[in-house]
Amino acid sequence: MGRETTPETLDAVLAASAASARVLARTTPDRRAAMLDALAAALDAAAGELVPLARAETHLPDSRLSGELRRTSFQARLLATRLREGLLADVRVDHADPDWPMGPRPDLRRTTVPLGPVLVFAAGNFPFAFGVAGGDTVSALAAGCPVVLKAHPGYPGLSRRTAEVVAAALTAAGAPEGAFALVEGVEAGVAAVRDERVRAVAFTGSQRAGRHLFDLACARETPIPFYGELGSTNPVVVTPAAWRERAGEIARGLAASFTLGSGQFCTKPGVVLVPDAAALTAALPPLTAGRMLTPETTGRFHTSIAELAAEPGVEISLCGDEAEDTGAAPVVLRTTAAAALARPAVLGTECFGPAALLVEYTDESEVYDVVAALGGHLTATVQAGSDGDEFALALVPLLAEHAGRVLWNDWPTGVTVSDAQQHGGPYPASTAPATTSVGTAAVARFLRPVAFQNVPDAALPAELRDDARGPRLVDGRRTG
Amino acid sequence: MGRETTPETLDAVLAASAASARVLARTTPDRRAAMLDALAAALDAAAGELVPLARAETHLPDSRLSGELRRTSFQARLLATRLREGLLADVRVDHADPDWPMGPRPDLRRTTVPLGPVLVFAAGNFPFAFGVAGGDTVSALAAGCPVVLKAHPGYPGLSRRTAEVVAAALTAAGAPEGAFALVEGVEAGVAAVRDERVRAVAFTGSQRAGRHLFDLACARETPIPFYGELGSTNPVVVTPAAWRERAGEIARGLAASFTLGSGQFCTKPGVVLVPDAAALTAALPPLTAGRMLTPETTGRFHTSIAELAAEPGVEISLCGDEAEDTGAAPVVLRTTAAAALARPAVLGTECFGPAALLVEYTDESEVYDVVAALGGHLTATVQAGSDGDEFALALVPLLAEHAGRVLWNDWPTGVTVSDAQQHGGPYPASTAPATTSVGTAAVARFLRPVAFQNVPDAALPAELRDDARGPRLVDGRRTG
Repeated sequence: MGRETTPETLDAVLAASAASARVLARTTPDRRAAMLDALAAALDAAAGELVPLARAETHLPDSRLSGELRRTSFQARLLATRLREGLLADVRVDHADPDWPMGPRPDLRRTTVPLGPVLVFAAGNFPFAFGVAGGDTVSALAAGCPVVLKAHPGYPGLSRRTAEVVAAALTAAGAPEGAFALVEGVEAGVAAVRDERVRAVAFTGSQRAGRHLFDLACARETPIPFYGELGSTNPVVVTPAAWRERAGEIARGLAASFTLGSGQFCTKPGVVLVPDAAALTAALPPLTAGRMLTPETTGRFHTSIAELAAEPGVEISLCGDEAEDTGAAPVVLRTTAAAALARPAVLGTECFGPAALLVEYTDESEVYDVVAALGGHLTATVQAGSDGDEFALALVPLLAEHAGRVLWNDWPTGVTVSDAQQHGGPYPASTAPATTSVGTAAVARFLRPVAFQNVPDAALPAELRDDARGPRLVDGRRTG
Repeated sequence: MGRETTPETLDAVLAASAASARVLARTTPDRRAAMLDALAAALDAAAGELVPLARAETHLPDSRLSGELRRTSFQARLLATRLREGLLADVRVDHADPDWPMGPRPDLRRTTVPLGPVLVFAAGNFPFAFGVAGGDTVSALAAGCPVVLKAHPGYPGLSRRTAEVVAAALTAAGAPEGAFALVEGVEAGVAAVRDERVRAVAFTGSQRAGRHLFDLACARETPIPFYGELGSTNPVVVTPAAWRERAGEIARGLAASFTLGSGQFCTKPGVVLVPDAAALTAALPPLTAGRMLTPETTGRFHTSIAELAAEPGVEISLCGDEAEDTGAAPVVLRTTAAAALARPAVLGTECFGPAALLVEYTDESEVYDVVAALGGHLTATVQAGSDGDEFALALVPLLAEHAGRVLWNDWPTGVTVSDAQQHGGPYPASTAPATTSVGTAAVARFLRPVAFQNVPDAALPAELRDDARGPRLVDGRRTG
């Protein structure tokens, strides 16, 4: 059962977090890398304990959870590596130049400093990767920010135990007291968003809850950045050429992707533009899905399906098998491009669970119109024919106007962690579309640039001194 | 006199801007660089016409205006240079890797795309550098975004003529119709902030007006980034050692800096911590300032001085000479650290004009307390003694917690344009402290990353193709 962090406890947590901020800010990148490595090692070492805890609370299978935990410790280690390599900062040095064309230039050196305490709302669907020690937490720590983690109520036991593992690992690696803490309960979360000691918020969850918290963050006397991932239907366009060439493969790929993890992925392909919805439905393999995260999740899934099916021109095309009486049978809905264009909101209606809406089109111009009517999404996918599918090529830049990641002949559910990953997109996919919540660029969300003018080496951050190594932009040239 | 852009005209402007966005987004960096070079050349060529227009409307001296125009065309050219060098994008390529530790990695390539139409509010105090063709305008154009420029009412004639020069230059350089337009009037500005076709706002001005517009931008159905620079008192700390060694030099430097341009600089040093306020006042050279921008500006200056002087413990220490009956005589106020700590708001009260508040401290601990009570500022300065001023060294990282730029034995009014410049800072200095509004990094405000997964070369942006040149992060290594 979830507990409610009391206002008194929250105050103490935030005080400790604020007090630790300056200490953390002055740690070297190597020291922060050591903390992240220690956190990763502790997670791996606790896998035998954490995975069963996660299974009991989320009903996700062990294989998925083990893989997710591996991903979670990997991303901490990748950030540690990039910290040591100096690749997470954006360091710029402009030496004094009396001949600078607009007038003499002083010595100016720019690096980044951490924002301070970061409030992270854990997500319900990834108890490790977007949970207590997930991407937002390690990104903030890599930036040198303390983390106050608002636990998701869907897995309280796992959250508390993971928090203990994380806190112990960080402390053993020399992190200051207050660098990490767990809080629980809606009221504590709301109060923390409003608290002046919190300097940034990261959130993954529903559009309703996320927008409410975003509004609170903007309305503060001192507004703070709110990095919210609020939902996406991840549209897919199957071109006529692709359909002619690979109908069976596309049907199998779609079925596997939209039912993966019982459809509880933020990158689930929820809207699929196809030339022939009936044929695609018929080509689907038998559909099954496991139990959903919580009874509430299952209930909301059924409600959202009913609401979507009640839209004009939308009907249920197929109901899959209900595995083990889980209450979460996969559902395929269908409509036409014309109907969707008459009610564009259906294109952005996320049914969180194993459901997909097929949108049948008659010609390319209808596809262009539907693409233009898309809102913001985490991903957008083209299923293209072999060489020479000019329609598919033309769709790529158009889909890029609506998504943070564009895929070609692939499915969006997998999200690798790397330097080039972009997990975000125009609102509501993200409240901060210029940022990513996955990949090494996620660290930049918690940093702020500061320039130092004519400051002597003795008072400069190490990476700005004349003898610093690592990648820098020096007098307009990349070095290191 | 200012005119009001009608709702019908505004709608047509925004429609044309939105229509041009896709065309501009697909221009190459070289093509955008050519547009910026053309804009710069046109501004320089029109100097003989624009500078007198500016002088008539702003009362700023020709020498200042000529220098400001030179800065303005320079920054357009610097962005053009960096565009050609590929230094404004953040390009990352991760090749497919079956052995990626968290699981096989697809080919993933990340670049940036422009946000779309940008609404720029010109500032009153820099009719060129933060005006119609100022830093925000050229940053947005460099990013590939069309610009809708809300003219400042303080120099309507100059705004209209500059807009004609800019529009003609851009058109001649191949920019699409709608890439640049001017609108006028408070209501048009407010309506544009709310319009869904506008995708970002840049603003330099008062905290009251800026916060109102920020709130509107956040409250939209689709919130958009609001890059607002809302004010700063640019605190200066004169250490005891500095005061012992260089009292006269510091007094002269301060006088020159806070009266420069009649104190109408966002980087004016408005709060000065000193060991001896009476001695600093006595050491100041004769103070004069020219006419302020408008009678309204002068009136607000006098009001703000009266309000600050009415605060407990604050008094007027010196009134300078009123040059040519301009109504804008420089004013020095004084208070004590103890009084300021009792009413920290006085430390953040910006008197826009030639005024500075001296804050006399008795010991180092009082300085630390005042620094901790500072809000967010564009700049913070240490006037330090010669080698071994440990107090000054200790202040640098503390001041960096409150400012976007930290200076050592220098004055903050000058703001060079370069790669390492940072013009921004914690709120209210900026509503987006992770960004800068001056320097080449300012372009990033108008870009959004997009990753392409398994997309063939033929559909990739040029900078992501295998044969692309230019700086990139490839499989975790910097190249180019």
